[in-house]
Amino acid sequence: MTNPYRAVLIVHNETSTGVTCDMAAIRQAMDAAGHDALLMVDTVSSLASIDFRMDEWRVDIVICGSQKGLMLPPGLGILGVSRRALALAASHGGSPRHFWDWEPIMRENRIGLFPYTPATLMLFGLREALRMLVDEEGLDNVYARHTRLAEGVRAAVRAWGLPFVCEDPRTASNTITAVRTPPGVDSNELLKHARERYALSLGGGIGELNGQAFRIGHLGSLNELEVLGTIGGIELACADLGLDIETGSGLLACQRAFLGSGARITSPALAAVV
Amino acid sequence: MTNPYRAVLIVHNETSTGVTCDMAAIRQAMDAAGHDALLMVDTVSSLASIDFRMDEWRVDIVICGSQKGLMLPPGLGILGVSRRALALAASHGGSPRHFWDWEPIMRENRIGLFPYTPATLMLFGLREALRMLVDEEGLDNVYARHTRLAEGVRAAVRAWGLPFVCEDPRTASNTITAVRTPPGVDSNELLKHARERYALSLGGGIGELNGQAFRIGHLGSLNELEVLGTIGGIELACADLGLDIETGSGLLACQRAFLGSGARITSPALAAVV
Amino acid sequence: MTNPYRAVLIVHNETSTGVTCDMAAIRQAMDAAGHDALLMVDTVSSLASIDFRMDEWRVDIVICGSQKGLMLPPGLGILGVSRRALALAASHGGSPRHFWDWEPIMRENRIGLFPYTPATLMLFGLREALRMLVDEEGLDNVYARHTRLAEGVRAAVRAWGLPFVCEDPRTASNTITAVRTPPGVDSNELLKHARERYALSLGGGIGELNGQAFRIGHLGSLNELEVLGTIGGIELACADLGLDIETGSGLLACQRAFLGSGARITSPALAAVV
Amino acid sequence: MTNPYRAVLIVHNETSTGVTCDMAAIRQAMDAAGHDALLMVDTVSSLASIDFRMDEWRVDIVICGSQKGLMLPPGLGILGVSRRALALAASHGGSPRHFWDWEPIMRENRIGLFPYTPATLMLFGLREALRMLVDEEGLDNVYARHTRLAEGVRAAVRAWGLPFVCEDPRTASNTITAVRTPPGVDSNELLKHARERYALSLGGGIGELNGQAFRIGHLGSLNELEVLGTIGGIELACADLGLDIETGSGLLACQRAFLGSGARITSPALAAVV
Repeated sequence: MTNPYRAVLIVHNETSTGVTCDMAAIRQAMDAAGHDALLMVDTVSSLASIDFRMDEWRVDIVICGSQKGLMLPPGLGILGVSRRALALAASHGGSPRHFWDWEPIMRENRIGLFPYTPATLMLFGLREALRMLVDEEGLDNVYARHTRLAEGVRAAVRAWGLPFVCEDPRTASNTITAVRTPPGVDSNELLKHARERYALSLGGGIGELNGQAFRIGHLGSLNELEVLGTIGGIELACADLGLDIETGSGLLACQRAFLGSGARITSPALAAVV
Repeated sequence: MTNPYRAVLIVHNETSTGVTCDMAAIRQAMDAAGHDALLMVDTVSSLASIDFRMDEWRVDIVICGSQKGLMLPPGLGILGVSRRALALAASHGGSPRHFWDWEPIMRENRIGLFPYTPATLMLFGLREALRMLVDEEGLDNVYARHTRLAEGVRAAVRAWGLPFVCEDPRTASNTITAVRTPPGVDSNELLKHARERYALSLGGGIGELNGQAFRIGHLGSLNELEVLGTIGGIELACADLGLDIETGSGLLACQRAFLGSGARITSPALAAVV
Repeated sequence: MTNPYRAVLIVHNETSTGVTCDMAAIRQAMDAAGHDALLMVDTVSSLASIDFRMDEWRVDIVICGSQKGLMLPPGLGILGVSRRALALAASHGGSPRHFWDWEPIMRENRIGLFPYTPATLMLFGLREALRMLVDEEGLDNVYARHTRLAEGVRAAVRAWGLPFVCEDPRTASNTITAVRTPPGVDSNELLKHARERYALSLGGGIGELNGQAFRIGHLGSLNELEVLGTIGGIELACADLGLDIETGSGLLACQRAFLGSGARITSPALAAVV
Repeated sequence: MTNPYRAVLIVHNETSTGVTCDMAAIRQAMDAAGHDALLMVDTVSSLASIDFRMDEWRVDIVICGSQKGLMLPPGLGILGVSRRALALAASHGGSPRHFWDWEPIMRENRIGLFPYTPATLMLFGLREALRMLVDEEGLDNVYARHTRLAEGVRAAVRAWGLPFVCEDPRTASNTITAVRTPPGVDSNELLKHARERYALSLGGGIGELNGQAFRIGHLGSLNELEVLGTIGGIELACADLGLDIETGSGLLACQRAFLGSGARITSPALAAVV
């Protein structure tokens, strides 16, 4: 292989910044370059909440976990592997491997087994989660719901006048929104107060954003009312700490965004029961 | 007994109207009348959310269930009985009874048993609920929280301009608020839409209020953010159905009520975890 | 009504003695007498473990609970009522009733509701229990399994040389076996030791059998191996207390009974998973 | 480092053969050789069921999981690391690492956090498991119980006349017993029948023992009665398949072993409830 690149590794949805990559464009760029690198994608915070097309985008390796869009506790690492990647792994003699070897897992899976102790409770949960997502709500409705909820969150942030960490609105994530706190405000203080006073769990700024940003997660099992509670809670926490944002402005903007959405779709919680 | 009344039966908190009785005043009136009737109180929708004082008010029989302020699934009927009521039940030969007899239960309870199959899972749950209410949050904080949440709900209803079923604000319940819908609006339609579109479960008008009122429950495990979600959801459902209330007015009023409350108490959900 | 009897009340399976009534014979006797009394049957410890035929035996009222053959926690009272009993209840003006009135429940049930707070968790559990009993194992297999397990238990008791409380083997219950302890042995001591040393929960003698008998429950979710553990545990407890029964005799007899049964039916635990 | 060995890796309890290593002797041998190799021990199938002394034996790295002696579902990998191993890892610049780096985990752990998404449900479960093992039953009692149960299992296997895979009785494991099936018998057939007919899950022969051995697990939450059910079930499965072992011989031998043990310790299941 004269070409030095073996694989392109992409995080589909970047949780620290709240940015979603345009996978179709990445695939097109690779095709345009005539490059045969493997395409590997981390979908941990997007799968089952944001549209992802392994086949259409010819993704070779998809990595995911159970604890986000799949609405389960942490405990499963999920891997999707293309035939091309499988063949490459089987043919390639270079790197010795044991724990990372796919072959024993696939061999056992064929007869309904697993080479190590499987997390059976999680597998039962995964079956139910897939029923809820695919059969009861429908994946297209799931994606539309997360678009709607994310637009509500973004409307609130704009009303507050706080800058998004994600600078290009076209790449704003539908599962997480990272927001910069005003200068002089320690975002970790805000998180602590929201958690202790309102049982509201926000994400902190990661890496160089530590102390300068907070993150609002809006993926998985979630509906409009929970988003309103979240936005209202952030405002209450900000007011308690004397931050200069107009209390209620985000709440109204968020609610207005939901109103305008005109959606008439049964919410997932109910669909699961009926 | 020349006096024809044997007992005064009171519902401490009336769920269909959202009215809380002034138990201290009732006790005083009975004392002033020199009446020896038993005082029996239904606390199903108040106990552990609204202050209740069996000893101080010399209540003879207190009836409660597990599924409201005690935050458990339905399944336990709970009875508090005064020594006077016990003595009366033991001495009174008039009415034959078996299932309603307290004696077998008390006899078995003394040795840690129960005369019928006990709902053991509920008893474990009750032990944990009491830990949360008494040890972790503290009953006074629980009562203060429900006062605060109820004031938020009432502020929202006033902002909507809708009449309360409870006409005297001094008796408004801190666990449930019944609201009259505008003339011409079927409250059952509103309930149905809120449930199906927003997974929001409101109570219907009961008896002659059927179709003319809806009820907002705010007892048990609940915090400010959940109340904001509830108020916001009612507004969205009303807007969807074209009801003439100003969307966002209740949400803002509710949030403002929480802001003004100045409370700095750790919320119960978090206290239970830490 | 010149005839003084309004109803015949039968306990299908008597838990204190371990006797099952011959319901078909009782129905025949009532028919032979040309009597129109209602036939009411308590099936608490038999339904879903021992064959019961409400329609064929023209039973008017069937009473059951959730916590035995239906394999759920205690919490549901279940009532089956014939059209004849319904008509009688509706037409009969004699006895005032409220809590005991069927009409409100039936009216609400028709539209998927319940007049009081329903035990929803139990209803979900009941749906799953019925799937396990009817779809996965099949009721006939369930009854055959309980016959097989009961025969194992009875073989053990005979090997011990201890008398059954149930004197006629033809009426021995397939869900519970009551056994007399040898003279001079307090059965409550045996129970206490089995519970504390072996985590084995046996039933005590009830009423006049208190202290003189113990009861082995074998209904609901149970298989051969659990019965062997139970029989072995009783023997260990007896040996610890110095009772004069031959340790191992019951265990061998029970196992031999299972061997001879020739059954090749998949056990229920597994059926439920696969 | 002139010495070619950096570490001695030991599996404390070998699940495929049912052999427990003598860790004290291994430590002594290493000391006698004056060797400074790290001592790393896999305790997956021994910890919390068989005595293990990290400090006394100066073990540098202990590896365990949640799903065996700790009585939890699979989901936690647990690592114990000595100060010496920590210092070595910190000082050694040779091997780049990220996922395998202990430093981020220790840094976050110090402030109650975790660098990745923690399996919180498992951590709550672990807290309860430790309460049960250490506070309620007591580790010494836990180890004594597993010795007692293992002796019952071994008595049964000897009665059957089947050879142990573990040839030296002094190293027989107290958590798992591997048994050779008679020549001509496929142990996988036995496993399949035991699972499908008796819901009894046995382990298969691993590697070259595949088809020639089966394994009886007896670790974690287990008591005498469950062992009797297991032994009785193996005998029933063998009898169904026509294997030449005397039905009941193992059951009797196992029960006799329990009888002779003279233990009067409250079983763990009960201790946890009381």
